[in-house]
Amino acid sequence: MAPYNCLTFLTDYGLEDGFVAACHGVATRIAPDARIIDLTHLVPPGDVRRGAAVLAQTVPYLPPAVHVAVVDPGVGTARLGVAVHAGDRIFVGPDNGVLSWAIAAAGGADRAAQLSNSGLWLHPVSSTFHGRDIFTPVAAHLANGLDLTAVGAEQAVADLVTLPAPTSRVHDGEVEGEVMSVDRFGNVQLSIAASKIGLLGAGFGGTLVVRCGRRQLTMPYLKTFAAVAPGELVAFADSAGLVSLAVNAGDAAQRLGLPPGAHVRLAAAP
Amino acid sequence: MAPYNCLTFLTDYGLEDGFVAACHGVATRIAPDARIIDLTHLVPPGDVRRGAAVLAQTVPYLPPAVHVAVVDPGVGTARLGVAVHAGDRIFVGPDNGVLSWAIAAAGGADRAAQLSNSGLWLHPVSSTFHGRDIFTPVAAHLANGLDLTAVGAEQAVADLVTLPAPTSRVHDGEVEGEVMSVDRFGNVQLSIAASKIGLLGAGFGGTLVVRCGRRQLTMPYLKTFAAVAPGELVAFADSAGLVSLAVNAGDAAQRLGLPPGAHVRLAAAP
Amino acid sequence: MAPYNCLTFLTDYGLEDGFVAACHGVATRIAPDARIIDLTHLVPPGDVRRGAAVLAQTVPYLPPAVHVAVVDPGVGTARLGVAVHAGDRIFVGPDNGVLSWAIAAAGGADRAAQLSNSGLWLHPVSSTFHGRDIFTPVAAHLANGLDLTAVGAEQAVADLVTLPAPTSRVHDGEVEGEVMSVDRFGNVQLSIAASKIGLLGAGFGGTLVVRCGRRQLTMPYLKTFAAVAPGELVAFADSAGLVSLAVNAGDAAQRLGLPPGAHVRLAAAP
Repeated sequence: MAPYNCLTFLTDYGLEDGFVAACHGVATRIAPDARIIDLTHLVPPGDVRRGAAVLAQTVPYLPPAVHVAVVDPGVGTARLGVAVHAGDRIFVGPDNGVLSWAIAAAGGADRAAQLSNSGLWLHPVSSTFHGRDIFTPVAAHLANGLDLTAVGAEQAVADLVTLPAPTSRVHDGEVEGEVMSVDRFGNVQLSIAASKIGLLGAGFGGTLVVRCGRRQLTMPYLKTFAAVAPGELVAFADSAGLVSLAVNAGDAAQRLGLPPGAHVRLAAAP
Repeated sequence: MAPYNCLTFLTDYGLEDGFVAACHGVATRIAPDARIIDLTHLVPPGDVRRGAAVLAQTVPYLPPAVHVAVVDPGVGTARLGVAVHAGDRIFVGPDNGVLSWAIAAAGGADRAAQLSNSGLWLHPVSSTFHGRDIFTPVAAHLANGLDLTAVGAEQAVADLVTLPAPTSRVHDGEVEGEVMSVDRFGNVQLSIAASKIGLLGAGFGGTLVVRCGRRQLTMPYLKTFAAVAPGELVAFADSAGLVSLAVNAGDAAQRLGLPPGAHVRLAAAP
Repeated sequence: MAPYNCLTFLTDYGLEDGFVAACHGVATRIAPDARIIDLTHLVPPGDVRRGAAVLAQTVPYLPPAVHVAVVDPGVGTARLGVAVHAGDRIFVGPDNGVLSWAIAAAGGADRAAQLSNSGLWLHPVSSTFHGRDIFTPVAAHLANGLDLTAVGAEQAVADLVTLPAPTSRVHDGEVEGEVMSVDRFGNVQLSIAASKIGLLGAGFGGTLVVRCGRRQLTMPYLKTFAAVAPGELVAFADSAGLVSLAVNAGDAAQRLGLPPGAHVRLAAAP
């Protein structure tokens, strides 16, 4: 295969230790010419779902690359490491679902391999830092053009672990979804595609009724949060094409008390 | 124009989402050979003044580059995006003043353009992530050598939005200024150039009277905070050439209760 | 000397200011082709010991490079800046011990020089930001292949400041050590090499008695924290070859109240 010139990393390693740099170092020694792009290393520890969401929403904007994602609460147990070819990308990480939404966004898995060829690993292999010792060296060899078949036994793509997709369904004039994530600004991203809003008979400039738990709020549905006065609530179509709730110049997640996973229903105001 | 080999980014996007990586990815796809330097992505959300200060104080140490700065509470509204040529640099961002102090530090704007040529943008353009969809792709094309005239209509440099410069004036044997920023160490940077201290009849080794609100403190004016004992207050000329207040091995902002914007007066001790 | 193609940085500068970017900019202007790897910039302010530990544990995974480390509470005082050649690496920073453990891990210092040749520095030199004005430009020239003798007067390697090594001793069937560091996951890394556990007559699958202060706990000693149920304590051999205490999917440092420097004794359970 032709070499990839780019390696990307998403982990929950944080930035206060040397963990990320160790991965960069291992990658650079094997693939000295590859560009490295860090997606984020601040996924909450062990939050596979959050890692999957950030990966899936960011990868479409990255160049063709080998994408390493390590949110791996089961490191050192029986869970497999895998490399998955999808479209013009290769994903490398634990087979625990963290890769699954990004693979789907890249068009679905073409073929996959288990990371069983220990000849590509860094030795001695630690039990708790497979990011440094297994995923990164394998990814760097793939970036150099190594064929997927060389990293280990073939893995049936149908058997790859897949996270349940975020729920979103339309019924009785409502769309029900859940909170996908809360970003730095406190914007609450829902699992509801902006395209669903039309099914409610609403559109930009309209008003939505937002129900979460026993509370019910109304807010305008606009193109951007900056279209309302500071401090006011607004629903908008965010940069990932999903409906988000925001407070202009404020923190909607805090105001609404909506953590990831919370259920939310939207309807057009009568 | 000859290509720039460097793109830099300053934003308030934070590091926990994939926003920064999306910008890096878009830049790399258009300008694969450009080096990327991140100034910071931890500007407090929407704090245009803080972004402007960090940009202006850092750019002089960077190579000639296309500098993207996005602190943009008005994203999606009528505010313009601009590209501004100043000295051997190009600045790209919203025309809300975030670029203005750095442009001044680079010698002033030579010419500017509105980002109106949508052919350079990423489509579909989101309403809330112009950093990814407009500023970055335009900047990457400029890094590749595209002329400023190609990004859109000419913008009169005299009409660019400029933040009011931080106040600093000498009167009655005092210099009055304000807190520009507080750094990670808790050092309180004032809007008072170290060169002004001489006008007070003081110098390194002397003693300053510092007035903030109703409080009055005296502290030595020295070359470095490490010249006083741990826990003691000191004024010094910082690495940006401004007077800063510090506590050696401590946090002066916390001790003095001085947030950005607070007014401070300095005089030589009698 | 042949040029190095890599510069690395470890500091306590944090990520919210432009300090790191200023160093990257200065480095890039002098050594435009060198790859830059950031180890971490979140060393707690002035914590030389923590900086030394992260540097020593990470450098073995990095390519041959010029490694800059600046945790420098004495900046601007009489402490020297040094460049130290060790194995296939060069370390640059203040001579306050921050480099010492990494130098030892790299095989010990071959030769050293004081940073006294001000012709390599950035002028005017600030009193408080030697990372930008002295360490980085000197390191970048070394990365370009400049010989160590050109940076300043020879420094006797025996006189370099060395931090006391973390304590760890075996007596009466116990190993006594201290907390080296706490990572992002709350894992408590001890100064006790995993190889010492065998001297206690214990091994993977056994049970350890952990004594800290007046408390005594028993926990399994396993290959990975993921081998116990969520919420349970476990001791394991970490990715640096040291014994660490963890709570699977939890925060052991918080649970055990063990900060860096705390003394801990381990024994095999009877």
